[in-house]
Amino acid sequence: MTDSAATATPSIDTDAVVIGAGPAGLFQAFQLGLQGLNAHLVDALPHAGGQCAQLYGDKPIYDVPGIPVCTGRELVDLLLRQLAPIPVQWHLGSQVQALESLADGRFLLTTSAGVQLRTRSVFIAAGVGAFVPRTLKIDGLQAHLGRQLHYHPADVAVAPNEHIVIHGGDEDAVAAALRCAQEHPTARITLLHRRDVFQAAPELLAQLQALRATGRIAVVAAQINAIEEQDGQLAALLLTDPQGAPQRLALDQLWVYLGISPRLGPIADWGLAMERKQLQVDAATFSTNLPGIYAVGDINTYAGKRRLILCAFHEATLAAFAAAEWLSGDKVALQYTTTSARLHAILGVEHPGDSD
Amino acid sequence: MTDSAATATPSIDTDAVVIGAGPAGLFQAFQLGLQGLNAHLVDALPHAGGQCAQLYGDKPIYDVPGIPVCTGRELVDLLLRQLAPIPVQWHLGSQVQALESLADGRFLLTTSAGVQLRTRSVFIAAGVGAFVPRTLKIDGLQAHLGRQLHYHPADVAVAPNEHIVIHGGDEDAVAAALRCAQEHPTARITLLHRRDVFQAAPELLAQLQALRATGRIAVVAAQINAIEEQDGQLAALLLTDPQGAPQRLALDQLWVYLGISPRLGPIADWGLAMERKQLQVDAATFSTNLPGIYAVGDINTYAGKRRLILCAFHEATLAAFAAAEWLSGDKVALQYTTTSARLHAILGVEHPGDSD
Ligand SMILES: Cc1cc2nc3c(=O)[nH]c(=O)nc-3n(C[C@H](O)[C@H](O)[C@H](O)COP(=O)(O)OP(=O)(O)OC[C@H]3O[C@@H](n4cnc5c(N)ncnc54)[C@H](O)[C@@H]3O)c2cc1C
Ligand SMILES: Cc1cc2nc3c(=O)[nH]c(=O)nc-3n(C[C@H](O)[C@H](O)[C@H](O)COP(=O)(O)OP(=O)(O)OC[C@H]3O[C@@H](n4cnc5c(N)ncnc54)[C@H](O)[C@@H]3O)c2cc1C
Repeated sequence: MTDSAATATPSIDTDAVVIGAGPAGLFQAFQLGLQGLNAHLVDALPHAGGQCAQLYGDKPIYDVPGIPVCTGRELVDLLLRQLAPIPVQWHLGSQVQALESLADGRFLLTTSAGVQLRTRSVFIAAGVGAFVPRTLKIDGLQAHLGRQLHYHPADVAVAPNEHIVIHGGDEDAVAAALRCAQEHPTARITLLHRRDVFQAAPELLAQLQALRATGRIAVVAAQINAIEEQDGQLAALLLTDPQGAPQRLALDQLWVYLGISPRLGPIADWGLAMERKQLQVDAATFSTNLPGIYAVGDINTYAGKRRLILCAFHEATLAAFAAAEWLSGDKVALQYTTTSARLHAILGVEHPGDSD
Repeated sequence: MTDSAATATPSIDTDAVVIGAGPAGLFQAFQLGLQGLNAHLVDALPHAGGQCAQLYGDKPIYDVPGIPVCTGRELVDLLLRQLAPIPVQWHLGSQVQALESLADGRFLLTTSAGVQLRTRSVFIAAGVGAFVPRTLKIDGLQAHLGRQLHYHPADVAVAPNEHIVIHGGDEDAVAAALRCAQEHPTARITLLHRRDVFQAAPELLAQLQALRATGRIAVVAAQINAIEEQDGQLAALLLTDPQGAPQRLALDQLWVYLGISPRLGPIADWGLAMERKQLQVDAATFSTNLPGIYAVGDINTYAGKRRLILCAFHEATLAAFAAAEWLSGDKVALQYTTTSARLHAILGVEHPGDSD
């Protein structure tokens, strides 16, 4: 439980929670919609798409069936368009941190945003883990999170004349420094990296060079060793430069860009049967060992498993059928989207001959 | 074995034969291609697409993942485009009629065109059966097949002044009569159906009406009871008209359009374990009970099976991996189409950084 969860936000009731909005989670929500089940979709990232969006957004994929070629991002856009008719509740930028079994057979999930979801079924589509920013491990620093310390911020308030230190050496860090220089004309900006070498597209490096030349952006090459606090505020970073000499850098805000990488996180603690880092499932239902909790996509394992997107689609579909049967206590017959008036109503498409 | 097979056409050697070019068979051939396996693709229909093309070519599907909407025919076109880089050998308009296990562990398949395929693996993607024309059951008639009798012919030679009798009452029959009138100016044409009622698009019915009015096409309403032969030739049909009166219709050729419908056919005789009309498979490999023979798509059954296109894609993929491992005797590691230089070479796409 996080601090914010303890402030007792009223919990939300739902049929299903899908953890992860990668390709598996997106198609899971679509198939739950076709089953008439209401779903909440949670992802640690501020956007949908999982690995496809985060790791190879601009690279082509060739083996999604019926799509001769598309980039990771294009696939995500297609899946979002397909999902559009389904009324999904989104929780982006939120990590599911706790899962508890309730006495009535339901589950209580708590997100890092303090939202509590009480649900009849859970679909873990967590891939290779929650995409979360890599943190900076310096004594006492974490206490300033959300106030003076921000990881990969998209949008933070900056007061006039503040000194913003941007920490990192890759494209995200360089782009953030350039954006800050443009959006906050009165801010003082320092780009801090352990060496004076940056990895970014040539245009961005050229822009950085130009702003260094005018003094608009200062570059400091040094390691961070410790912080200095004053009245509970973060006052300065204590550094060592490449020559081994100590340095002190006063600042108002620290923006950290050390990359975003997947972390399995709390899922390993939920009492689910695992094999290495995967959740064991039954390939007929994609149920885990806890009835009502399913796992689909890269996170699961079963005989023959291949970690491919097209396999996740199949898994999500059978999991939706299995959950619909488990929740209704009844067999669910197959219906075709081509011919079923019930599915046409859900998809919001009209067909001659459909009754209403 | 058919007559033509007995004339000992030299047999063809291959890694894999895929029986059925519906969505399952098309994607199976693609996945075999990614595994570097050479495949022959056989379908009873003269075109690819199985049920999608044959039963709902113009109707929209909404649940193919990443394709918010497409018609049956559009899906088939997309799958064919995806398959284009893979060098598949096609056998359309051919039914696989016999499957025999050879002493060396391979299989010998014989098609209705007399082609013999000797293969190391077989992928049965036969759906709800081979789409074959419904035959006319009249004593002695079948002996004239391929000479004076044709089922749903696409293209038959017609000599000057021949009398062509076209039998059937639906759009295919009406269209065939109109096409014949146009392509064979000297032919006499009779459209024979048990009642003077035809099911076809209004434009076609209007054209038929116009050609009846000029006498270009004669319509006869009657049942066929028997045939009359002369010197081994089909000479006439013996009919009963709606009033119960006997009629005799002399003719040169009989073209039969009684519809095309799926028939499981010989597959049931190949010694494969079945449950109702489905082949039992192991859901880790999609192997049948005979090692080297796999079954994917609507034809198979396993715990949790749903007869959906997206499930067939998953099945075909795992079957291709399983076959590649079985044929090589070695583990096959997963490679991504996004990043693998080996797969890029197979797909004929160039990527920076690929070695050759
Ligand atoms: C470079 C590369 C190339 C690839 N190429 C191909 C290819 O050509 N073909 C192919 O089929 N596959 C390919 N893949 C693999 C494919 O991307 C994965 O199989 C697919 O993304 C798995 O989807 P998923 O939805 O299961 O998981 P992911 O895409 O990993 O998405 C999981 C999501 O869950 C979220 N999450 C996890 N835990 C939590 C939590 N506790 N709370 C909130 N959110 C959470 C994560 O933030 C993430 O967004 C490739 C992968 C890579 C890295
Ligand atoms: C009206 C309708 C609407 C549908 N809507 C949807 C939908 O919305 N979503 C969905 O996922 N699915 C839908 N389906 C189901 C979908 O079409 C099937 O799941 C799919 O076609 C199965 O693919 P397949 O390749 O296994 O078999 P098929 O499409 O049946 O293809 C099998 C092929 O094998 C050939 N064959 C069989 N035996 C032999 C032999 N011995 N020799 C040579 N060839 C042979 C046949 O001629 C045929 O072409 C629908 C089906 C229908 C009828």
